[in-house]
Amino acid sequence: MAEVLVQPPLLEVLRGKRQSVPPVWMMRQAGRYLPEYREIRAKAGGFLDLCFTPELAAEVTLQPVRRFGFDAAILFSDILVIPHALGRAVSFVAGEGPKLEPLTDPAGVDALPHAVDQEILAPVYAAIRLVKASLAPEVALLGFCGAPWTVATYIIAGQGTADQAPARLFAYRHPEAFSRLIDRLSDASIAYLVRQFEAGVDAVQLFDTWAGVLPPEEFARWCIAPAARIVTELRRQVPRARIIGFPRGAGALYKNYLEEVAVDAIGLDWTIDKTFARKNLQSRVPVQGNLDPLALLAGGSVLDQGIDAVLKSFADGPFIFNLGHGILPETPIAHVERMLARVRRVG
Amino acid sequence: MAEVLVQPPLLEVLRGKRQSVPPVWMMRQAGRYLPEYREIRAKAGGFLDLCFTPELAAEVTLQPVRRFGFDAAILFSDILVIPHALGRAVSFVAGEGPKLEPLTDPAGVDALPHAVDQEILAPVYAAIRLVKASLAPEVALLGFCGAPWTVATYIIAGQGTADQAPARLFAYRHPEAFSRLIDRLSDASIAYLVRQFEAGVDAVQLFDTWAGVLPPEEFARWCIAPAARIVTELRRQVPRARIIGFPRGAGALYKNYLEEVAVDAIGLDWTIDKTFARKNLQSRVPVQGNLDPLALLAGGSVLDQGIDAVLKSFADGPFIFNLGHGILPETPIAHVERMLARVRRVG
Repeated sequence: MAEVLVQPPLLEVLRGKRQSVPPVWMMRQAGRYLPEYREIRAKAGGFLDLCFTPELAAEVTLQPVRRFGFDAAILFSDILVIPHALGRAVSFVAGEGPKLEPLTDPAGVDALPHAVDQEILAPVYAAIRLVKASLAPEVALLGFCGAPWTVATYIIAGQGTADQAPARLFAYRHPEAFSRLIDRLSDASIAYLVRQFEAGVDAVQLFDTWAGVLPPEEFARWCIAPAARIVTELRRQVPRARIIGFPRGAGALYKNYLEEVAVDAIGLDWTIDKTFARKNLQSRVPVQGNLDPLALLAGGSVLDQGIDAVLKSFADGPFIFNLGHGILPETPIAHVERMLARVRRVG
Repeated sequence: MAEVLVQPPLLEVLRGKRQSVPPVWMMRQAGRYLPEYREIRAKAGGFLDLCFTPELAAEVTLQPVRRFGFDAAILFSDILVIPHALGRAVSFVAGEGPKLEPLTDPAGVDALPHAVDQEILAPVYAAIRLVKASLAPEVALLGFCGAPWTVATYIIAGQGTADQAPARLFAYRHPEAFSRLIDRLSDASIAYLVRQFEAGVDAVQLFDTWAGVLPPEEFARWCIAPAARIVTELRRQVPRARIIGFPRGAGALYKNYLEEVAVDAIGLDWTIDKTFARKNLQSRVPVQGNLDPLALLAGGSVLDQGIDAVLKSFADGPFIFNLGHGILPETPIAHVERMLARVRRVG
């Protein structure tokens, strides 16, 4: 039973067990704010080359864990590998973000393959195996994928958009075709996440970055229902699967999400009312979050007060410390160090 | 007492009196979806020239009332006339939106004048007088201004931004200077709105378009507190003032807003949970909203169902039908006609 001794604290939290010192990781912790990341990135060619070269993806995944001693490594990848593996080729233009051929009509949905090309995704699983092999046993390894709604916004618009209007309009105009797209993305996500667990991740996070723009009825249909299906099916195929849901920006609808989606924990963005979250969300499942990434960038007393407010709200229950969204590239490393020291001081 | 007979139904609602047929208007109803607007716009020179030429601004204000018989005219103007009148010159670049010199440090705040240049704003008041003179007495005339937080996001970034990060970061780094900026914008807003009432508006709307990106503590400080001050001071100077608050995207925090800001009505964006809004907001004040502008653009059964859902939620109480944000330029006029017919059928 030696394994019990080295159970990562983050997984204990996902089992509902509060840790005296909350485990910490950061969304986008492997990224541009780190000089060692920028060095590898410069060598790697394109962004997707980095994602799809197992040794490099593994290396950048491990960098922040090595430097800061985070309680989790999160696989370095991108939510758009799924459209890429469904034949919607993605490119990353420096300073402009991802570009795809827009999908503008129902025929485009029906032309999508019924399954992801697992050969394209194979390097992701190889990267997971490499990370797993060199990760200390007390550090959790997290995989992830984009939730179907969020991935669909990019597939339809062909790029990031301010208000996701193209996907929202497509869903209004062609609800049945949009439903088929969401189903296909859900199937792809399930297949992808099952393989991630087979390759060695301990838990996964489902990123619904653009959940916050939808009216409640559409949120129920395009975010809650597919997430519920993904979670149920993933558990059926991988009974040990642990899953963190992250319907960013859902506000009061976070409660609706948790009523339907059997996640092990819920990630909170920085806009949520902490009192609401403690009462309605942490009463049901462990919570993760939710320091404003701009408070981390600002540093100083703003950072300290932000950390303290998060701890005061959530550290009495099962809780994983994180940001409310990804760390910003301009963030000084000293601020991350200060954050870690302050969070861990509570123990 | 003839005046009582021609009281606009919209003002009756603002007094808490439900109308059997809800009054209707649309945010951005004077705008690019109308050919008669595009014709005037093409003649006017720049966008601000249109705002600051009373005859033209009055004409485009009246166009949608004439065409559709809306229950309110809303003055054609822009929330950025306030920075313009505070010495932060605004220009509108076609296809790019507004541009200002960014305000990047506390010294920039302290260099702002203590009062708006009322000579710059005089054409706005002239336009109000022209509209008032030719508006039927049963049609309400609405003025508006941007709320201090939202106006500050443009002043600091020098343009619209995806997540208002520059202003949020400025507020973290320089909270006292940012507080002075908000105070100065609040003073400017009060002076501007008082003059709008003197010129003849019946009610005003306070647009806090970017309220939804703030954590609750910052929302309380930068949105709720200044709105409360503006409303209190405006009522003191203009006892007949009627005020509609619109903290777009505030979600569950709409409730906090209403607890502190003594508005006569609250505008709801399209993402709010209607059950929550009926229970927690319409129980306190009349509500206005909240059809998704994309449902209006989509048309057909999506539009009909969207209208019906809004009416079912709110038409039993004091209620003004509107969109949840501005009408989009691509919207077919036939969809607006369909919307009006359906809303008025309920009477």
